[in-house]
Amino acid sequence: MMLPTHGHPARVVVFGFATVILVGTVLLMLPVSAENGQLTPWVTAVFTSTSAVCVTGLIVVDTPGHWSTFGEVVIMGLIQAGGLGIMTLASLLGLVVSRRLRLRVQRSAQTETKTLDLGEVRRVVLGVISLSLIMEAATAVVLTMRMVHAYGYSWAHGSYLGVFHAISAFNNAGFALYPDSLMRYATDGWICIPIVVAFVLGGLGFPVLFEIARHLWARGYRRWSLHARITLLGYGMFALAGTVLITGLEWSNPATLGDFGTDGRLLVGMFHGLTPRTAGFNTLDVGEMHPATLLVTDVLMFVGGGSAGTAGGIKVTTFALLAFVILAEARGEPQVHIAGRRISNEVVRQALTVVLVGVALVFLATLVLLMLTPFGLDAVLFESVSAFGTVGLSTGITGELPPLGELLLVVLMFTGRLGPITLASALALRERGRRYDLPEERPIVG
Amino acid sequence: MMLPTHGHPARVVVFGFATVILVGTVLLMLPVSAENGQLTPWVTAVFTSTSAVCVTGLIVVDTPGHWSTFGEVVIMGLIQAGGLGIMTLASLLGLVVSRRLRLRVQRSAQTETKTLDLGEVRRVVLGVISLSLIMEAATAVVLTMRMVHAYGYSWAHGSYLGVFHAISAFNNAGFALYPDSLMRYATDGWICIPIVVAFVLGGLGFPVLFEIARHLWARGYRRWSLHARITLLGYGMFALAGTVLITGLEWSNPATLGDFGTDGRLLVGMFHGLTPRTAGFNTLDVGEMHPATLLVTDVLMFVGGGSAGTAGGIKVTTFALLAFVILAEARGEPQVHIAGRRISNEVVRQALTVVLVGVALVFLATLVLLMLTPFGLDAVLFESVSAFGTVGLSTGITGELPPLGELLLVVLMFTGRLGPITLASALALRERGRRYDLPEERPIVG
Ligand SMILES: [K+]
Ligand SMILES: [K+]
Repeated sequence: MMLPTHGHPARVVVFGFATVILVGTVLLMLPVSAENGQLTPWVTAVFTSTSAVCVTGLIVVDTPGHWSTFGEVVIMGLIQAGGLGIMTLASLLGLVVSRRLRLRVQRSAQTETKTLDLGEVRRVVLGVISLSLIMEAATAVVLTMRMVHAYGYSWAHGSYLGVFHAISAFNNAGFALYPDSLMRYATDGWICIPIVVAFVLGGLGFPVLFEIARHLWARGYRRWSLHARITLLGYGMFALAGTVLITGLEWSNPATLGDFGTDGRLLVGMFHGLTPRTAGFNTLDVGEMHPATLLVTDVLMFVGGGSAGTAGGIKVTTFALLAFVILAEARGEPQVHIAGRRISNEVVRQALTVVLVGVALVFLATLVLLMLTPFGLDAVLFESVSAFGTVGLSTGITGELPPLGELLLVVLMFTGRLGPITLASALALRERGRRYDLPEERPIVG
Repeated sequence: MMLPTHGHPARVVVFGFATVILVGTVLLMLPVSAENGQLTPWVTAVFTSTSAVCVTGLIVVDTPGHWSTFGEVVIMGLIQAGGLGIMTLASLLGLVVSRRLRLRVQRSAQTETKTLDLGEVRRVVLGVISLSLIMEAATAVVLTMRMVHAYGYSWAHGSYLGVFHAISAFNNAGFALYPDSLMRYATDGWICIPIVVAFVLGGLGFPVLFEIARHLWARGYRRWSLHARITLLGYGMFALAGTVLITGLEWSNPATLGDFGTDGRLLVGMFHGLTPRTAGFNTLDVGEMHPATLLVTDVLMFVGGGSAGTAGGIKVTTFALLAFVILAEARGEPQVHIAGRRISNEVVRQALTVVLVGVALVFLATLVLLMLTPFGLDAVLFESVSAFGTVGLSTGITGELPPLGELLLVVLMFTGRLGPITLASALALRERGRRYDLPEERPIVG
């Protein structure tokens, strides 16, 4: 098996995802997928299929209310396919990029640079699949036990709920089998904490998880890659800041945290500090949050999690690179350095491009949704960022959008899911030298 | 006269502006400045003084209603001082930066690089003052004629109105001597068009105006600088896009453009496509605009006008540089080129820094204002961007902010006015080499 040598490997990713979404759409349209045994309209089906494959979790119909058990299993399969697909393909693209760079440094022929051999591909695919299944199984076991022992579900029903929510959590999909997402479990740490652990680990990304695993099992293995260090530190800082800000802002809001005791507020506040990155379950009514909380959540959703994982957004490393550019500028240094490593100008420009294209997409979607709907900027910006970051949180307007608005979110989920990855790798693979150079001139900045 | 060789020249700018604002605050607090002959509270005075010196135009009290004629003349003087100051100092800083860069290229001693000789300083100061006075005088003459002939003002009163609004327009200050800004003149082209011409020319910036003047008067002078080309093209593109979008979005809004005939809609639409960059007069009720129009206006206000002029914002060149980075990335080129000129990585990073610091400031101010006030994101974001971009447009919430909110806007106007200029020049002057270099490592982007 080889990635194609003709055309761009990023195209394979886009084509593969579109195919899976199409298959999902057809399956979800079937009468057998709906609780009422009728055909589901194609806009609803394509929205739900895209939301599942892109592991977003935005919904235009209530998941347990509209879909039959067959439909729910289809959704679960689409989530699993989307999650495995993105982790595998992003990891492979990462390998292609670093291989290409190594070869370029060695000045080797460029014709082989876009291919990976069978061994490497197999190692990545098996690694992703086994890691995912282990994490999902562990989460499912804990959830099932709790469902059966604390809530009186039968083992069959309890394990179905456990497996579905474990898959939805590890893949950062945010689909739940309750009309209120996970609000009924808001203060149940036995449900919330395994789910948080699953979506945080899934959201760190395969390369970081793989490094953590090597550190845990391979003794004497010491060095952490720059990527892992930035991801872990950046993820942690956003997690802390998000938790503190959101818990603080909602502490006395009677429609959200104000309802709970101190323990409950801390647990639910932590959940809502972490779920925007980009799990998408909610244990509070997001529509009742303060506008300042929505704005903080917007930032957390836009940044998202680690690269080559199940989280969306522009990714922690992309954000961190730009932060280090500003630090370098403040110090007056001609090169950007992070933790004793130099960052090339090409990487900085790629990070900048990913962020600016992301901002432009969210801005355009927000503008169009403002024109199409009666909702204000708070709700519409939140919805756009949630779709772009494949988060799935909503103030509650998703189901009230006109069909054109729903299709716009479909496009946004798809580009938000694949855009940053494929854009970054496409840019990295297109790097090439220029044989001559033009005279330099300096416009005034600021 | 020399700019100081010790410390950073940008400090002089900040200190100078703070001093003028302080003097203005004291003058405006005096009973003689108020219509009712009483002391004005210090928060109101410092807000108005900052708004005038930073040529913003946001107001917490009605200008003709609260201030006496003496107070209005103080405001006019503060606008003139602020406008001349920013044009002069930004132009001088631009010279220092380009001098420093030339010297660095010539590998000369660095000790002289932060000084300018008397001749250069005199040339810039005289150029700025004479250009400003000529533009203001021409605008004042047209406005005065119209005030006297069409609206029956006496020559004394008419010329007072003409001079005040001409100074306010050329300096992009946005202060008007009517409670409704310029809404009463919405469809009067003899008032609106001279004001638009004045604020557009002032907003292009002294370096561009100086080049235009040389092209008009010095025959045989052909080459346009990269800075002038980017500014003129970028300003024009935003002017066109802003006018088309805002006219289109408000066309049928009965509370705004819907009131007027086709000619009126086009004139008022054009005015509101241009006034966000960053004049700040309004001929429509901004509070009645559609949320989508507010969002488009936010972008126009954030970008602003040309460098070293009276417009605020991050500036057209800064925005254009980042757009060309994306273009270079899309083409896979290792260097950024604009119109046959190479742009150094340092300049790209400086532009990036100015934009990201601006985004961070606006975000923080918006977040704090959301926490302090009952207003929604539409209005609060608009207010923050208007203050940062020293625009002066408002949905009408400025006067209803708590004192802490007003002081936050004071800080935002000050940093918005001086931040991009001083930040960019400080960064450019701090550029230095690094004697050794660290190994390169590449985190995953996206
Ligand atoms: K999600
Ligand atoms: K202004």
